[in-house]
Amino acid sequence: VHSLENYKTALDKAVAELPLNRQPENLYEPITYILGLGGKKIRPLLSLMACDLYSGSFMEAIPQALAVEIFHNFTLLHDDIMDKAHIRRGKPTVHIKWNEPTAILSGDLMLILAYEQVVHAPHHLQLPFFHLMSTTAREICEGQQFDMDFETKDQVSLDEYVEMIRLKTAVLLGCSLQLGALRGGANEIDARLLYKFGEQLGIAFQITDDLLDSFGDEASFGKKIGGDILANKKTFLRIKAIEFGNAKQVAQLKELDSEQNVENKIATVKQIFTATGVVDEAQKAIKHYHDNALKCASELNLSEKEQFILSSFANELLNRQV
Amino acid sequence: VHSLENYKTALDKAVAELPLNRQPENLYEPITYILGLGGKKIRPLLSLMACDLYSGSFMEAIPQALAVEIFHNFTLLHDDIMDKAHIRRGKPTVHIKWNEPTAILSGDLMLILAYEQVVHAPHHLQLPFFHLMSTTAREICEGQQFDMDFETKDQVSLDEYVEMIRLKTAVLLGCSLQLGALRGGANEIDARLLYKFGEQLGIAFQITDDLLDSFGDEASFGKKIGGDILANKKTFLRIKAIEFGNAKQVAQLKELDSEQNVENKIATVKQIFTATGVVDEAQKAIKHYHDNALKCASELNLSEKEQFILSSFANELLNRQV
Repeated sequence: VHSLENYKTALDKAVAELPLNRQPENLYEPITYILGLGGKKIRPLLSLMACDLYSGSFMEAIPQALAVEIFHNFTLLHDDIMDKAHIRRGKPTVHIKWNEPTAILSGDLMLILAYEQVVHAPHHLQLPFFHLMSTTAREICEGQQFDMDFETKDQVSLDEYVEMIRLKTAVLLGCSLQLGALRGGANEIDARLLYKFGEQLGIAFQITDDLLDSFGDEASFGKKIGGDILANKKTFLRIKAIEFGNAKQVAQLKELDSEQNVENKIATVKQIFTATGVVDEAQKAIKHYHDNALKCASELNLSEKEQFILSSFANELLNRQV
Repeated sequence: VHSLENYKTALDKAVAELPLNRQPENLYEPITYILGLGGKKIRPLLSLMACDLYSGSFMEAIPQALAVEIFHNFTLLHDDIMDKAHIRRGKPTVHIKWNEPTAILSGDLMLILAYEQVVHAPHHLQLPFFHLMSTTAREICEGQQFDMDFETKDQVSLDEYVEMIRLKTAVLLGCSLQLGALRGGANEIDARLLYKFGEQLGIAFQITDDLLDSFGDEASFGKKIGGDILANKKTFLRIKAIEFGNAKQVAQLKELDSEQNVENKIATVKQIFTATGVVDEAQKAIKHYHDNALKCASELNLSEKEQFILSSFANELLNRQV
């Protein structure tokens, strides 16, 4: 098994070699731009690692790694338009640097390019890869719409929330691993287990992200603490607090939605989160999904050493943000 | 060979039976809505007809007909956002009836659904259908971007213009026919000829549309005459007029770009179009591309009667608008 550094070098080279120097420039340049903004490239690295674990040769999965990377960046590009975001990774978003029509269209093309990449595989894998990519893409659209729906919904249950983050975030991690594993020659059982491993880990890390957004350390979390609280976002913590809190705490939480004093709002909501015990609940949930993932890993037809490498790499990749 | 009415009935039934009654509603309902807005359904009917010509059984091509219909409506949905259009076929556009994020996302999902439909075919056709759809989808994005680029471009050549309408409009007509023909058992040569037939016919009808937009009869054209002139659109007529006109006519045409009197602007530009001979040129070009199409039809491995049916159906479908 090679090192993450090996994967990264190969991936960066493959991204740089994508045939994007085409006409019309205004359609292709935004794709080069967003793919070049950096980021941890978690998904493609997972594909390469999974392939490497089964074949010892991660280069075979480069097209699938490119597919998930292009697909992920397509979702970021369109999400930025939907969220009216101006900055991504310190640079102007595509619809700001170019314009919205170009951003919509370049995103559409990225979805097409992701499909084209994913089927670059031996013949027997082309259709399975097509279907896995397509199902995942559809689920991610569903997850994004659920997330938008939640903003205006009065009540969101924890089950609905977990299903939303599973669709919006976790399935693509599962898909990335499954694609790589199948390309590396894994059997169907292992491929499904790796999907589940990625999916459950993805849920664990999204809840971790919710927790860190309110209780993290600003320096290591990498962004301002309290963003979700200020946006009244229906995160794991808030949903649990409304479920667990007494009438007074719930009423107070809802009153705080319109609180204008930023510092007071963050501090008071955090007190309620702590008092209602939802921080513990979040930690329990994170452990639950993380354990699910480890159980999947333990059932893989790989040596214990390889299982350990898998879990360590995945944890390292997912450490700060999904 | 069955009648267009037979195809229409079967297609409408298949559209109505699409599994779109799903969650989240806000994602799937806009798709049902835009597919239900009517329209001539030219592309899916071409697929069914092409299949019928070779197999005598058009139902086999229903998934491909759905694919091109869903794909075409995906482009309309996203184009309406880009154009800030409020009305489509007398009803509010999706981004007006719902909102822009939902319109972007539902469009994305339609592209995914089009891919999923197109591969519903016997095994040996699945990958060829995937690649034909994907190449066509990519070309349509390119055509749309060229069209947007032309708005701010000083000079557009006639070759650039024809290539733009080929990509933006014509290739999907070719693709629709090719998919249907292959599904019906046509050989590769006939499938390519049918693609070319649709493509060349598509170019002919787009130039016809340009001509009718300025010189048509309002009642039969179905929309206000002079829209392209008022928008200073770089149509076949305008590009040719700038190429053919003398210095005075070209200068006058450019001055008229900022003319505020609507009736005067339309009348004067039309005079210049007539005086420069570009109406004749447009008619010549239409005949040229139409002849190209008929030549392709004549080379098909079909009886003369079947070739005639094909050309008549295609003309009937494309009669008013592409």
